[in-house]
Amino acid sequence: MSYARQMLAVQPSAYTVDVDLLAAAIDAISSCGQACAADNDADLSELNVIEMITCIRLCQNCTDICVATVGVTSRPAQYDANVVRPLLEACKAICKACGDECERHARMHEHCRVCAEACRSAEQACQDLLDALS
Amino acid sequence: MSYARQMLAVQPSAYTVDVDLLAAAIDAISSCGQACAADNDADLSELNVIEMITCIRLCQNCTDICVATVGVTSRPAQYDANVVRPLLEACKAICKACGDECERHARMHEHCRVCAEACRSAEQACQDLLDALS
Amino acid sequence: MSYARQMLAVQPSAYTVDVDLLAAAIDAISSCGQACAADNDADLSELNVIEMITCIRLCQNCTDICVATVGVTSRPAQYDANVVRPLLEACKAICKACGDECERHARMHEHCRVCAEACRSAEQACQDLLDALS
Amino acid sequence: MSYARQMLAVQPSAYTVDVDLLAAAIDAISSCGQACAADNDADLSELNVIEMITCIRLCQNCTDICVATVGVTSRPAQYDANVVRPLLEACKAICKACGDECERHARMHEHCRVCAEACRSAEQACQDLLDALS
Repeated sequence: MSYARQMLAVQPSAYTVDVDLLAAAIDAISSCGQACAADNDADLSELNVIEMITCIRLCQNCTDICVATVGVTSRPAQYDANVVRPLLEACKAICKACGDECERHARMHEHCRVCAEACRSAEQACQDLLDALS
Repeated sequence: MSYARQMLAVQPSAYTVDVDLLAAAIDAISSCGQACAADNDADLSELNVIEMITCIRLCQNCTDICVATVGVTSRPAQYDANVVRPLLEACKAICKACGDECERHARMHEHCRVCAEACRSAEQACQDLLDALS
Repeated sequence: MSYARQMLAVQPSAYTVDVDLLAAAIDAISSCGQACAADNDADLSELNVIEMITCIRLCQNCTDICVATVGVTSRPAQYDANVVRPLLEACKAICKACGDECERHARMHEHCRVCAEACRSAEQACQDLLDALS
Repeated sequence: MSYARQMLAVQPSAYTVDVDLLAAAIDAISSCGQACAADNDADLSELNVIEMITCIRLCQNCTDICVATVGVTSRPAQYDANVVRPLLEACKAICKACGDECERHARMHEHCRVCAEACRSAEQACQDLLDALS
């Protein structure tokens, strides 16, 4: 059981969603932020780096937005839909864009294949959380 | 002239907005993120800390979202409205919420008065940027 | 296998350490940063919040330093001991300080017990990485 | 007067240093983190991107460490030399490394000239703060 899940079992939450779902979102978004930092670095080592530039930029934005989303959702004692919903929309959108781009390189670069998987998982987790919060 | 403004004068941007407006937004959001970190710390030193808890939490979310928004808008060579617009909406919403709460304490706590000003400035900068990007 | 571990299996690294050890450090530090954000939020809900203020502040610093440390170590294609070693020292020190403080509240607050565990794990991971990098 | 300086005038600080010096450090490190995010993005648009890869990577590490350093120093009510000193050492080292690299490209790329200036200013600010904290 992840620390995010363990913490949610014992911390106050104003999020009216299942604790497993929220923990899964935090973990998926956190992993995606890390994977994108790693993938961006791996892209920069590729011989075809010029073809990877879009991927590099998307990965950087994805990491930044994932870090903020993990921060906000890890502090659930207050909940403001006006803040959390657009943040999750931004996170979902960058995870989708980054996942799409990584998938285009997945056959050539194993690191993009793994990163695409992390992005898909986080995109789905954002959508699941958005659905549950409605 | 801030470094953000100096950089924007010489870096490629896909944002179809005035460079001064984008630089002003980056600077205002960056300052707001810092002010909220500082205000949160000052709140924790107050005798009436229990009344400051909402303020502390809003400040923390505001810092996280401002940091991500500065990161994304500082890398303007690519622009994706599906990502940037909800991120700016989230940033505007937390700056408004945090500014409103800080204003409630502005007479009693000078640090909240200053932080409210930083939040208002960033909220307006997000709105200006959203308007210009339409 | 975590995404950090999967990525390290396929990304270039200039870190002359075992891949499992580096992945374990990234995962432990990442989890600690999340746990501290959560614990800080839970602390703010406690009736004895005034006794938790040191804990709240340590958690905030711990999150910030863990996020930066995860970012830097997730991009291992370049390695500069002058940067990475003091960063790991800072991370180890804040994880120790935060773990010590959380332990003081572990019997009363289950969230501090869990967070202390996350801090201890990250502190040890920083030390292991520092030892391996020597 | 920056918000960092305005906040320090009214927030409690355990840092036994001049308020102007601490505010100047926060502002310089914050500006450097932003400039490095911008420079990294500009580097990725250059025709000679392959020669810019070291610069790109240093800029990314510099942004991450600057963001954490701004966060920690913006919350000065507690001070722990075991944490703050190595963090400032890491920040100084990455600002120096990034400034050195940017300077190598300063004649060819104006964005690197500006970023080098931001890095030098932050490097000096870290040193000044380290000296004052001794």
